[in-house]
Amino acid sequence: MIELSTLSLGLNAPKGFVQASFAPPPGAIRLLGGVPALEALPAEAVARVSAELWQDPQAVAAALQYSPAHGFPALREWIARREGVDPGRVVVTNGGMHGLTLAVLTVVERGATVAVDDPVFPGFLWALEVATTRILPVPVVADGFDVEHLAARLRAGDRIAAAYTVADFHNPAQVSLSAEKRRALVELAERYGFSVIVDNPYRELRFAGEDLDVAAFNSSDRAIHVNTFTKTLGPGWRVGWMVLPEHLVEPVIRLRNRLDVHTSSVTQAIVERFVTAGLYDQVVRDATALYRERAGALVGALHEHLPGFFDIQAPEGGLFLWPRLAGDGLDPAELFREAAANGVVYQQGEYFAAGTDQRSAARHLRFSYSDRTPAELREAVRRLAVAWR
Amino acid sequence: MIELSTLSLGLNAPKGFVQASFAPPPGAIRLLGGVPALEALPAEAVARVSAELWQDPQAVAAALQYSPAHGFPALREWIARREGVDPGRVVVTNGGMHGLTLAVLTVVERGATVAVDDPVFPGFLWALEVATTRILPVPVVADGFDVEHLAARLRAGDRIAAAYTVADFHNPAQVSLSAEKRRALVELAERYGFSVIVDNPYRELRFAGEDLDVAAFNSSDRAIHVNTFTKTLGPGWRVGWMVLPEHLVEPVIRLRNRLDVHTSSVTQAIVERFVTAGLYDQVVRDATALYRERAGALVGALHEHLPGFFDIQAPEGGLFLWPRLAGDGLDPAELFREAAANGVVYQQGEYFAAGTDQRSAARHLRFSYSDRTPAELREAVRRLAVAWR
Repeated sequence: MIELSTLSLGLNAPKGFVQASFAPPPGAIRLLGGVPALEALPAEAVARVSAELWQDPQAVAAALQYSPAHGFPALREWIARREGVDPGRVVVTNGGMHGLTLAVLTVVERGATVAVDDPVFPGFLWALEVATTRILPVPVVADGFDVEHLAARLRAGDRIAAAYTVADFHNPAQVSLSAEKRRALVELAERYGFSVIVDNPYRELRFAGEDLDVAAFNSSDRAIHVNTFTKTLGPGWRVGWMVLPEHLVEPVIRLRNRLDVHTSSVTQAIVERFVTAGLYDQVVRDATALYRERAGALVGALHEHLPGFFDIQAPEGGLFLWPRLAGDGLDPAELFREAAANGVVYQQGEYFAAGTDQRSAARHLRFSYSDRTPAELREAVRRLAVAWR
Repeated sequence: MIELSTLSLGLNAPKGFVQASFAPPPGAIRLLGGVPALEALPAEAVARVSAELWQDPQAVAAALQYSPAHGFPALREWIARREGVDPGRVVVTNGGMHGLTLAVLTVVERGATVAVDDPVFPGFLWALEVATTRILPVPVVADGFDVEHLAARLRAGDRIAAAYTVADFHNPAQVSLSAEKRRALVELAERYGFSVIVDNPYRELRFAGEDLDVAAFNSSDRAIHVNTFTKTLGPGWRVGWMVLPEHLVEPVIRLRNRLDVHTSSVTQAIVERFVTAGLYDQVVRDATALYRERAGALVGALHEHLPGFFDIQAPEGGLFLWPRLAGDGLDPAELFREAAANGVVYQQGEYFAAGTDQRSAARHLRFSYSDRTPAELREAVRRLAVAWR
């Protein structure tokens, strides 16, 4: 168990998800973020749906007035059908980060220890700080969160309030948690009495391989399954959802009453109309096709221009590539400086280290390919090759 | 100083602002709430502004993507001009309640004591519970929060982290804090080193008397001034703002990064376009004219049908009437039952008591006149007269 304050994660000055305060050199190609491509967001369909909404007096009344803390009923029903749960277990949130914070405030007692992915999505550590700074880093390996590692720590006497992992297309580590480990993690939680906070914003964006079922999470009294429309309909909506065990629905709603009453009725009204009109699946199909092409362009260019330079797994979905430097002699900080000087910026792996040993994560780079065109991605790799050769 | 848990405020089961779970008899006239009249909300103008927005590619990009944690720049500038402050001190929130919670989480240490209005808006006590349950109730008198009462307690040795009051058209007590007391409260805060959390959602809705300046709050390093578009553009937006002392801007933003990233870009884009198009003032003018008429109808009917039954002050703005029962022999609980049986429901005064002595608040009733027509208000009073005679 370690204290977050001993780490150099910059937790006292979170920079936001796109590192808005980082100023790359003029003309640099930014592989930062995890921001969906603007051209993948359904602006025209939203305009149509929104115009209908404002012409419908009953819908206008619902959009402009207070609404239930749980969320708009038809939106919750639509989400519940996709998740395979009773609508009563769905709570609409102000996006995925808000769902994570609600989960933390609901199940993590002040000062408790929480097991987290290592490498980890730093935003979760920021959310966690509202309750605790004690974390138990758990390695993320080829098939995700190392459940056996955590089990060994628990057998040795460690105790945790919750375990946090990104289940599909991990940020930053790109991998997905295997079906066996989903069941094993939930069983471990039931045996030791901790909560599992499952963060799943990239789940819909699968462009290869087979969907890994979420039933293990959605059927457990110990799992909180957090998702969002951020990566499919756009971050700007700030609309997401939680699938909660029944006994946590009322505690989360009581918390909402204290924090923010409910998610915007306006955004819920538009998103509800959009998804119940059957428009969502096409958005996901178009987005995954776009991201498949981009991931392919990036991986292809790396093989072509920097052969042998990285250990690379071709992504099966999501927004990130997490290549590992093949040569131990290379200095990641120097590579980053050379890349930036040659007009490419990306996220350095050490930024995601959850443990005190940052060396493993520091051998990786996180390339976000989602909001760059194939031509930009190829040009970025060409520049990297020039910089690093 | 008292512990909230000793009170019967139902804090563990907040019912929401409109008491959605309260089921009045069929056909009853509801004077509950504090909900703006639907006909006072600018649905048509919003439809127009929204349609323009979705046709403007640059605006669409801003609406669908992440945006700065502080809020949309032109929206902050518009707010800052009205508040007479630098835009850097404005942070956009997810509505007034969210602003109150951010204030509490920023300036109230765990377990600290907070001075609050008595009677009090119960929602603030729910928000406060995220940090503390210790309150020091301060009477709300004819010219608002009793600053001298608090000063005496502080001289006697009591210490507080913050003082909370609704400055204009108090909920539930209808009064406004006088100009002298605004200055006195801020001076007291500066002398004793506590924060003033000023809740001001009804400020725009003045239909009589003169605006009481907010410069005393906006020029103090000790005051957090919380406001919202909830009562003018509608609760459904969940868009509000805080005017913060400079030294609290970054702490609030760091908290946002942990809690919810930022307020919806979609709602901010529409509200920004709406207010910068100059459409807001007309909304406020129309709304105050509507509420003036309704307040007048209610007060007139009470004088006509129940003369001498209440001590009544004619409201100068806001959404509430807070009449006091003139006869000490009347039992408020019995009156409430008789009223409900005759088809009128309102909020009983005791619901708003912050102190352990609930007798004073219990002599009052809170009538919300905002979302009832003059005819409904007159019929409600006619029913009350039948019930109580």
